[in-house]
Amino acid sequence: MWRPFFQPYHLIIVQDGDPTKTIKVPEGFDYELYNRNDINRILGPKASCISFKDSACRCFGYMVSKKKYIYTIDDDCFVAKDPTGKDINALEQHIKNILSPSTPFFFNTLYDPYREGADFVRGYPFSLREGAHTAVSHGLWLNIPDYDAPTQLVKPKERNERYVDAVMTIPKGTLFPMCGMNLCFDRDLIGPAMYFGLMGDGQPIGRYDDMWAGWCVKVICDHLSLGVKTGLPYIWHSKASNPFVNLKKEYKGIFWQEDIIPFFQNVTIPKECDTVQKCYIYLSGQVKEKLGKIDPYFVKLADAMVTWIEAWDELNPATPAAENGKAK
Amino acid sequence: MWRPFFQPYHLIIVQDGDPTKTIKVPEGFDYELYNRNDINRILGPKASCISFKDSACRCFGYMVSKKKYIYTIDDDCFVAKDPTGKDINALEQHIKNILSPSTPFFFNTLYDPYREGADFVRGYPFSLREGAHTAVSHGLWLNIPDYDAPTQLVKPKERNERYVDAVMTIPKGTLFPMCGMNLCFDRDLIGPAMYFGLMGDGQPIGRYDDMWAGWCVKVICDHLSLGVKTGLPYIWHSKASNPFVNLKKEYKGIFWQEDIIPFFQNVTIPKECDTVQKCYIYLSGQVKEKLGKIDPYFVKLADAMVTWIEAWDELNPATPAAENGKAK
Repeated sequence: MWRPFFQPYHLIIVQDGDPTKTIKVPEGFDYELYNRNDINRILGPKASCISFKDSACRCFGYMVSKKKYIYTIDDDCFVAKDPTGKDINALEQHIKNILSPSTPFFFNTLYDPYREGADFVRGYPFSLREGAHTAVSHGLWLNIPDYDAPTQLVKPKERNERYVDAVMTIPKGTLFPMCGMNLCFDRDLIGPAMYFGLMGDGQPIGRYDDMWAGWCVKVICDHLSLGVKTGLPYIWHSKASNPFVNLKKEYKGIFWQEDIIPFFQNVTIPKECDTVQKCYIYLSGQVKEKLGKIDPYFVKLADAMVTWIEAWDELNPATPAAENGKAK
Repeated sequence: MWRPFFQPYHLIIVQDGDPTKTIKVPEGFDYELYNRNDINRILGPKASCISFKDSACRCFGYMVSKKKYIYTIDDDCFVAKDPTGKDINALEQHIKNILSPSTPFFFNTLYDPYREGADFVRGYPFSLREGAHTAVSHGLWLNIPDYDAPTQLVKPKERNERYVDAVMTIPKGTLFPMCGMNLCFDRDLIGPAMYFGLMGDGQPIGRYDDMWAGWCVKVICDHLSLGVKTGLPYIWHSKASNPFVNLKKEYKGIFWQEDIIPFFQNVTIPKECDTVQKCYIYLSGQVKEKLGKIDPYFVKLADAMVTWIEAWDELNPATPAAENGKAK
């Protein structure tokens, strides 16, 4: 199903779990495949920051990519149809979202003002109409919604059938739950903040990899005046994962997020932090200091955040292109 | 067109301009009609806070109403149709919006989580899922979009044909351009802040009545932890007003809003202000102090804001019901 939409692009596949197993990639795709042995070989001791047996391992792909735009998708996501029955080219919409500005500083009631047939409404300040660079495009899901285990348990039959024909900027100062199922970002602008944390094997938590990245990404985008969009495109999410298994993985996340979210709502990154890397290192220090009190896991996570940036910088030595990540 | 939707409700008509003219109200409606003479008689010298020859005069109706929910609409707005061709009952949707909570503290990517078929997504903190009381429901417009004069001039043929099937909460800390064309609010919760300012006859500005109210309302809602929603319902906006006339009316607004919006973005209402009235009086003081420097108009406006609250309290002596407006 994805072939016509993915074939023009370069694929990076990060193989989770047993590296002796072989993944068969259908013919005709331009791809790189990495398993755990590759990650260990490439990163050496720094491989400790890449999760094992969890979807969080995908962020290794963000680090080794040489492309400007990254799209990440789950293996149970398929091509959705728009209300006219036409297949949705998710990547095309994501790229449109990323290439047009965001409006994080003031709300536009007619949604994306840059879209054809729309504009800024009366009362929108003219000085803000150029908007901000868009760093992230967060797509949505038809069929199985992205619910947590308790909601899955309470509403096992709920399906998302509502196609909302809108793309909107998440305002500055507002956090959101970033789902990694259908997500696109500008690697030059925000890549080093797209760390999916320590999850799964040997960790007390799972299914919070994308949430963790989303909180970090949003506060850094707000600090650097970059935009984050959500809405179109939709993908078709085919199957709900087991809610009982999910509940076990999520339990600590559900519990801890009550402290983590106020932490991210209140953190202020100092002005001197003018690159994503500097912002991220600052955040890691705050995580250790403020969240470390809640559980030793956050001390370990804060250290892994630093390791991630060290590994990122090792694999991505500064070039004029990488300097685009700087605040303007 | 509106008869089946409006007939069950009580109408308040505020007649603008020449009071000797007679407005004919179609039979079968339960209504009160006020002209300028009535306003002067009822408010005495305090009538100075009600604008003349401008749509801002409508806020007199908010003051004299004895109802909990107010809906305000322009005379060139008609019943819109949803994508299935069915007439939209705008009031019914507004009341649904107002009666269900808002989510101003965290963004839900699947839009209104209280709507049938939707919920809070994974990663939404459980402690925030009860939401906040909804004070305002801001509806949108098909056909003629609510553009300012410069945009009207540049895009005279643009029509809004996109029906976005969503209601969303405008996050805490984010301002929006509130349009009075299709607007509903809970008078007990936010009524005293719905002042449409000094516009039109004898004033240097017009067409910013609803914008002014929107900025004040939003910062007060944020302070009192009340919610503001935007999206459905749509009405059909039949005709664009003259862009050349609008440009003259709006000119000062377009110019001043570059200072007014940062003012509202930065104003902090003190904790002691625990009613809408106290918040509004505090705002009026800040308007005088901070915006008075820009133009003497703002000193006059700040005084009118105080007069408005005095008139409101005179016509609406405190009762247990009115106490609902207090922060909880």
